[in-house]
Amino acid sequence: MDLRVGVIGTGAIGEDHIRRLTHTVTGANVVALSDINVQNARRIADKYGAKFYATGEEVIAAPEVDAIVIASWDPTHAHYVLAGIKAGKFVFCEKPLATSANDCKNIVEAEIAGGKQLVQVGFMRRFDRGYRQIKAAIDSGRIGEVLMLHCMHRNRVPGPKHTTEMSIKNSVIHEIDVLRWLLGEDYKTAQVLLPKSSRLAEDGLRDPQIVLLETQSGVRIDVESFINCQYGYDVQCEVVGETGTVRLPDPANMEVRSGGAFSYEIFPDWSDRFIEAYDTEFREWVDATKRGIVAGPSAWDGYVACVTADACTEARETGAIVPIAIPRRPAFYKK
Amino acid sequence: MDLRVGVIGTGAIGEDHIRRLTHTVTGANVVALSDINVQNARRIADKYGAKFYATGEEVIAAPEVDAIVIASWDPTHAHYVLAGIKAGKFVFCEKPLATSANDCKNIVEAEIAGGKQLVQVGFMRRFDRGYRQIKAAIDSGRIGEVLMLHCMHRNRVPGPKHTTEMSIKNSVIHEIDVLRWLLGEDYKTAQVLLPKSSRLAEDGLRDPQIVLLETQSGVRIDVESFINCQYGYDVQCEVVGETGTVRLPDPANMEVRSGGAFSYEIFPDWSDRFIEAYDTEFREWVDATKRGIVAGPSAWDGYVACVTADACTEARETGAIVPIAIPRRPAFYKK
Amino acid sequence: MDLRVGVIGTGAIGEDHIRRLTHTVTGANVVALSDINVQNARRIADKYGAKFYATGEEVIAAPEVDAIVIASWDPTHAHYVLAGIKAGKFVFCEKPLATSANDCKNIVEAEIAGGKQLVQVGFMRRFDRGYRQIKAAIDSGRIGEVLMLHCMHRNRVPGPKHTTEMSIKNSVIHEIDVLRWLLGEDYKTAQVLLPKSSRLAEDGLRDPQIVLLETQSGVRIDVESFINCQYGYDVQCEVVGETGTVRLPDPANMEVRSGGAFSYEIFPDWSDRFIEAYDTEFREWVDATKRGIVAGPSAWDGYVACVTADACTEARETGAIVPIAIPRRPAFYKK
Amino acid sequence: MDLRVGVIGTGAIGEDHIRRLTHTVTGANVVALSDINVQNARRIADKYGAKFYATGEEVIAAPEVDAIVIASWDPTHAHYVLAGIKAGKFVFCEKPLATSANDCKNIVEAEIAGGKQLVQVGFMRRFDRGYRQIKAAIDSGRIGEVLMLHCMHRNRVPGPKHTTEMSIKNSVIHEIDVLRWLLGEDYKTAQVLLPKSSRLAEDGLRDPQIVLLETQSGVRIDVESFINCQYGYDVQCEVVGETGTVRLPDPANMEVRSGGAFSYEIFPDWSDRFIEAYDTEFREWVDATKRGIVAGPSAWDGYVACVTADACTEARETGAIVPIAIPRRPAFYKK
Repeated sequence: MDLRVGVIGTGAIGEDHIRRLTHTVTGANVVALSDINVQNARRIADKYGAKFYATGEEVIAAPEVDAIVIASWDPTHAHYVLAGIKAGKFVFCEKPLATSANDCKNIVEAEIAGGKQLVQVGFMRRFDRGYRQIKAAIDSGRIGEVLMLHCMHRNRVPGPKHTTEMSIKNSVIHEIDVLRWLLGEDYKTAQVLLPKSSRLAEDGLRDPQIVLLETQSGVRIDVESFINCQYGYDVQCEVVGETGTVRLPDPANMEVRSGGAFSYEIFPDWSDRFIEAYDTEFREWVDATKRGIVAGPSAWDGYVACVTADACTEARETGAIVPIAIPRRPAFYKK
Repeated sequence: MDLRVGVIGTGAIGEDHIRRLTHTVTGANVVALSDINVQNARRIADKYGAKFYATGEEVIAAPEVDAIVIASWDPTHAHYVLAGIKAGKFVFCEKPLATSANDCKNIVEAEIAGGKQLVQVGFMRRFDRGYRQIKAAIDSGRIGEVLMLHCMHRNRVPGPKHTTEMSIKNSVIHEIDVLRWLLGEDYKTAQVLLPKSSRLAEDGLRDPQIVLLETQSGVRIDVESFINCQYGYDVQCEVVGETGTVRLPDPANMEVRSGGAFSYEIFPDWSDRFIEAYDTEFREWVDATKRGIVAGPSAWDGYVACVTADACTEARETGAIVPIAIPRRPAFYKK
Repeated sequence: MDLRVGVIGTGAIGEDHIRRLTHTVTGANVVALSDINVQNARRIADKYGAKFYATGEEVIAAPEVDAIVIASWDPTHAHYVLAGIKAGKFVFCEKPLATSANDCKNIVEAEIAGGKQLVQVGFMRRFDRGYRQIKAAIDSGRIGEVLMLHCMHRNRVPGPKHTTEMSIKNSVIHEIDVLRWLLGEDYKTAQVLLPKSSRLAEDGLRDPQIVLLETQSGVRIDVESFINCQYGYDVQCEVVGETGTVRLPDPANMEVRSGGAFSYEIFPDWSDRFIEAYDTEFREWVDATKRGIVAGPSAWDGYVACVTADACTEARETGAIVPIAIPRRPAFYKK
Repeated sequence: MDLRVGVIGTGAIGEDHIRRLTHTVTGANVVALSDINVQNARRIADKYGAKFYATGEEVIAAPEVDAIVIASWDPTHAHYVLAGIKAGKFVFCEKPLATSANDCKNIVEAEIAGGKQLVQVGFMRRFDRGYRQIKAAIDSGRIGEVLMLHCMHRNRVPGPKHTTEMSIKNSVIHEIDVLRWLLGEDYKTAQVLLPKSSRLAEDGLRDPQIVLLETQSGVRIDVESFINCQYGYDVQCEVVGETGTVRLPDPANMEVRSGGAFSYEIFPDWSDRFIEAYDTEFREWVDATKRGIVAGPSAWDGYVACVTADACTEARETGAIVPIAIPRRPAFYKK
């Protein structure tokens, strides 16, 4: 029996998830949707055979809806997640879980109060084959204890209205989650370095930035965030252990020899780079939801990521080394 | 409305296709199946909620079956394909289409007589992202006219009962099809070189072999077939044009620095190497079948591959340069 | 007419330079040498047809000696360099120029007082083909303005009696010089991060360390120093500009496919990695010396490197962000 | 005491060798030279402090000349080599040793009659680090017995007056020598395939060509010769053994990420690609000559290469598989 999904938010990423749930992932159907852009939402509802609802609340309440996907405007996430929990339905919420740590905390408390884990956050890198190979390598002990991570997160050009703050809260937050998952431990301090800004960064945007994180056991992480790198979408991650290193490969693209050079393409966009990770993320979410469990990044993970991103933001603003006060993990969320 | 598929042959590859059609590809259901190993077939039927039939003919005749997948023993392919055509149902037949050129010809003639293209052959490399990038590069003219192709097709160890003949008919046949598709033209001559045989090749197996093909326009192709290369499953393809070359990349695997070396894994098996190609192949087959067309490798392609493989076999046996007599393409099969 | 060289210090690196000047570099002869290990020095003198002198001072004073190479114990460098300047002879001094910034300053002042540049410091990376390609790329503007550098300096195992302090003063000092040369500007601040230490680091050695440097124009540099990385000698350098990045290649070693992996060797030692850079360094030093000029890293460069390394050491000890007070470059030393 | 070298032929490659012997290789001086272009030869003589002689014979006879380097027009090689042998002087002869197998044979016979090995042929690839790594890998047994070699020899554009015949006799002859050296055995048959010719090949030049060689033990070799590949100078060599493969690396050049691609430069010319091999070749030749022996490719090797190239030429002209009749190696030439 297929999982019947209601989608709140049918902008670019919302529509892409609808397409994915319809055409790429088996075992699910999008049966209901809603968006503030009514015209576009109705068009998509027609295209995919889903029912249009005037509000996200109605989607959540709809009896034909088993589970919710939230892809609306970031500031509305918390509200819909809480409504989903209240309705006792499984919720997939695009990152960020909420725009403030306090809202995340409310979600965590509501979920605990409800007595059942329902919420998964859209940190899709945990589903990328490369990161999973790295995690397996770390866990196998083949490079000894991890000591350092060197990461790059480069976008060709920023999205519209990109701000200095968003480089951490919307972009580096992926590293914040996935590195913590790789290492199996939380962060202790954050510091942000601000290199000379690219002349191609507009309107006062500070770009690039370098986020330095220290974990509780003393692993040191540097994450270069470069929203304006011009040449392509490029995510790199090297893990340095006591006896060796492991590193994400570049995606496999055709090798060319011409015009005096060997070359291969670097993808222009994250959608090409992580298309398989998104597919796997939803495939596993549908499977887990049908089994009645949450197997991916939890509300707790979303909360910790938000607390960490807040500390990074403070570190950027103050130039100081900022302690990251991660609350104690409730037993409700097993590691 | 989902495509209802009947599967004939539920050995390793047959079961894998059933799993793929059920869990990976949307828009299709396996509703019927059959196999000479009745016990195993019944187990799979139960697992996937399909109906077991005693014979392939019954699967083809079953009214609830829209389209057929044939993954039975090679010598039975032609029989079932012909039955499928007779029943007017779409047929996906694992390669080879038939074990003799004459049987292929009969299929082509039956399909033409039926007046509608129904048959697709399981040459999955046409669906591999790397080969598709190469085809796009060739078609764009960015390396000028193609002059040469250098290909390797290496298996770690041979399957059970592998024979010298099978290296061409079951293995190099993939190159025979995909290179012809890349180039958009047929072959003219074949020659086979027999290097010193590996001491690890058992029971008189000649391994490796080198197949030399010449196309009608004069492109020269060499294909190394090495069934026993020990180190992994490795498929390589370099296309040399007038102004540059393009080449399949190695699959993207985690990069490791340890023990005095940089390294990354080479897959041990074809199933890891081409898993995405298989998924894409069936996704596109389901989509095309629902639209009532054949968009992948046709019965004609299966016939031409068989004629070419026969010429290669003769070339291996005689040591001569053997002309390849490809019949004229009927207008029924558009290029 | 060959340059007649006197060598002070005939330990491992001193003897290697004698071999290089004799057998690899044209236009020079080692005619005199001295070392506190008299027995070994006499053996080497015999082997290379040089005259043994009891003291470095005698080597410097010897009338048959045109130019001096200093490869003795670090704390003796300043003394011999000053003596060489006093004698008006060209001096090649292995890094470091001196073990304190004050001694470096004395050398700079003596050289200026003497009115002629005579001293070159053994920062051989400026002569490495890869770094030179990077410098050319930066200077050409093809990656826009430089914003960040990410560097790794990894040794398989530390040399004997390696201390935490030496990781910066003897190892990272290479990056301190070469990056400043790449960028054409001085540093402004230093900070040192101390990741969790490898359990393979003995006797209280803090290893790895991460040195963070900021240049006067705001370029941000991170240098990982890992003396104990176990897997090989590995120097990496990526320069991130506004429109692209350039990066040192791994040295070209034979590519192997075996045992389920693609691999190539990583050199175990710096001597293999930088052998060509050393050869080029001496070839160019001999040529420049014969023309009566200093074309390589100057005493001023040695001084600035020492001041920078001192700041890094203070940063490591205090955990603070330490300003680097580079004195104003005298006009005597042109950029 | 330096080896005093006389050079016959001061065209591009001759002058380059004079520069190399003067400035790059220690232990040798060019003291005499001759060329039919008298004006240019006098200029070079002045520049390098050598004595100009009117004829090659005079260079050979000059009492101040210890050893001869022949870099004159190919058809004159045999004459000067024979004269050198007669004079009892060591001879380095650029490839080819002679323009006919018969002339090579005369040289071999003269050398044997003289009772001492004096002649080395300029097959510089044996001195390339990559080929030497491959030879060491083969000899170590780490890839089992060698079964196949796949080679490419690509030039960006042909030299002036390049002919179809020269692709083998002047270009593939490098592979003919170095592969035989790698394998330690001679060839048995040759065949040449002529792919569709590049439209950029002028004046009836057949380009590319594929040379197929079979060794006496049954190893199969394919060498693509492409004189007109447009994109750069590219030499590749993969050796396939029973348990793995080894392959020449691309030369190490700076890695660039810009404009949507990862890339590195491919050298435009052989002089960049093999500069180190040439240096090592002459360094070792000078050393061996001073010790009174020939350690590099011998006159016998030059003879065998010529016989093989002749067979390849016949194979190209006839389209047939041509046996290669290598005479029995005289005991005078140890393996």
